[in-house]
Amino acid sequence: MSEPHTVTAYDDELRWLSRRLSEMGGIAEGMVADALTALINADTALAQRVISEDLLLDQGEREIYEKAVLVIAKRQPMASDLREIIGSIRIASDLERVGDLGKNIAKRVISIHTMAQPKKLVRGLEHLSELALTQLKEVLDAFSSHSAEQANSIRERDEEIDAIYTSLFRELLTYMMEDPRNISACTHLLFCAKNIERIGDHATNIAETVFYVATGQQMTVERPKDDESASVVADPAE
Amino acid sequence: MSEPHTVTAYDDELRWLSRRLSEMGGIAEGMVADALTALINADTALAQRVISEDLLLDQGEREIYEKAVLVIAKRQPMASDLREIIGSIRIASDLERVGDLGKNIAKRVISIHTMAQPKKLVRGLEHLSELALTQLKEVLDAFSSHSAEQANSIRERDEEIDAIYTSLFRELLTYMMEDPRNISACTHLLFCAKNIERIGDHATNIAETVFYVATGQQMTVERPKDDESASVVADPAE
Repeated sequence: MSEPHTVTAYDDELRWLSRRLSEMGGIAEGMVADALTALINADTALAQRVISEDLLLDQGEREIYEKAVLVIAKRQPMASDLREIIGSIRIASDLERVGDLGKNIAKRVISIHTMAQPKKLVRGLEHLSELALTQLKEVLDAFSSHSAEQANSIRERDEEIDAIYTSLFRELLTYMMEDPRNISACTHLLFCAKNIERIGDHATNIAETVFYVATGQQMTVERPKDDESASVVADPAE
Repeated sequence: MSEPHTVTAYDDELRWLSRRLSEMGGIAEGMVADALTALINADTALAQRVISEDLLLDQGEREIYEKAVLVIAKRQPMASDLREIIGSIRIASDLERVGDLGKNIAKRVISIHTMAQPKKLVRGLEHLSELALTQLKEVLDAFSSHSAEQANSIRERDEEIDAIYTSLFRELLTYMMEDPRNISACTHLLFCAKNIERIGDHATNIAETVFYVATGQQMTVERPKDDESASVVADPAE
């Protein structure tokens, strides 16, 4: 009777990892969405709440890391389970970082909430964040369903986020050049945009992990993870 | 006779991981140092070389990931070896990201090399990068020597990098406000500074991994990994 019991306990451990990771995903998505809502409404109380939630993700990452190492040591899992458990560690680390980026946006909301902000560009940031959050949500679904195909298509769609980010970068720069009074707020918005673009990169990282967990192969074609904003040169009109 | 042979092969695998990680560390450090040299000398050829080297780190990370999973599956290592092997995966991921950040600086060098740059602030960036590279070098030494104590002191020193970064952020903002012609170059310098500050954070992440590998315990006191620049508010003088 001990064998089925052991297997059940092991299954429970794997399910625990998977459930804890889903919880982290939900928290991370919520933080980013709330940070953008706080930005749009200049809502510093909401921004403060986002900042405080970051601890939950730090804790989640630690717990998953410890549990994963314990499970591997105790159960000596077969290759596919092993990939999934190590994948959990990697994904937890990406989600923790997504939370950091959400928190950083929230901090900037508090810094700039009294300043005039270009409505059109803030809406652009909101759109960017919707795309990034869709990627994040879908890649976590792909992890649950072990879908290499879905992981592949998510990675390819990151280019759209990069393109929109680069165009926002250019517009924010132009806005700063038009009136130096915009510089302080727009610099923070630039970093908010960069943070959202990075959230898209983390979704891409997770997609790569999901692909490896599902297939045992790493995605071979290197996707350039960088956006093009590093190459944007804008001179003032004068 | 098969047992000693197996142990030796296993030791070889662990040594391979450790050596490959050292190589990655050397490449990452070199890329960041070269990116800064390229920035200071407006040397686009050097910047181009940094960009091309990034592939080496992508490849290193993949190889370490695959090898680590294989070694765990094959050898079913004891807890301390297991922590070290999983630690290798985490550290490889941090080093790959350091390379990305170095590459991103190099791309910006190419964008702004013809523009006037505030010499004092570029020197400030150089100083910041020297601190970050020292952290990176020392934390890789700490990994080799399994020194929890050294890992601890490295994590604490990250505050200095954050403080200098925040002060550079403020100065760059002021510079942009003084003359809109500085905006384009200074925005890229702002992101270069942010990249260097992030490299310091990756050294901190590695310190946390080293501590866990060495002790089996996670660092308990949460260090705020964020700099204070998100809270900088600077208005134009007018």
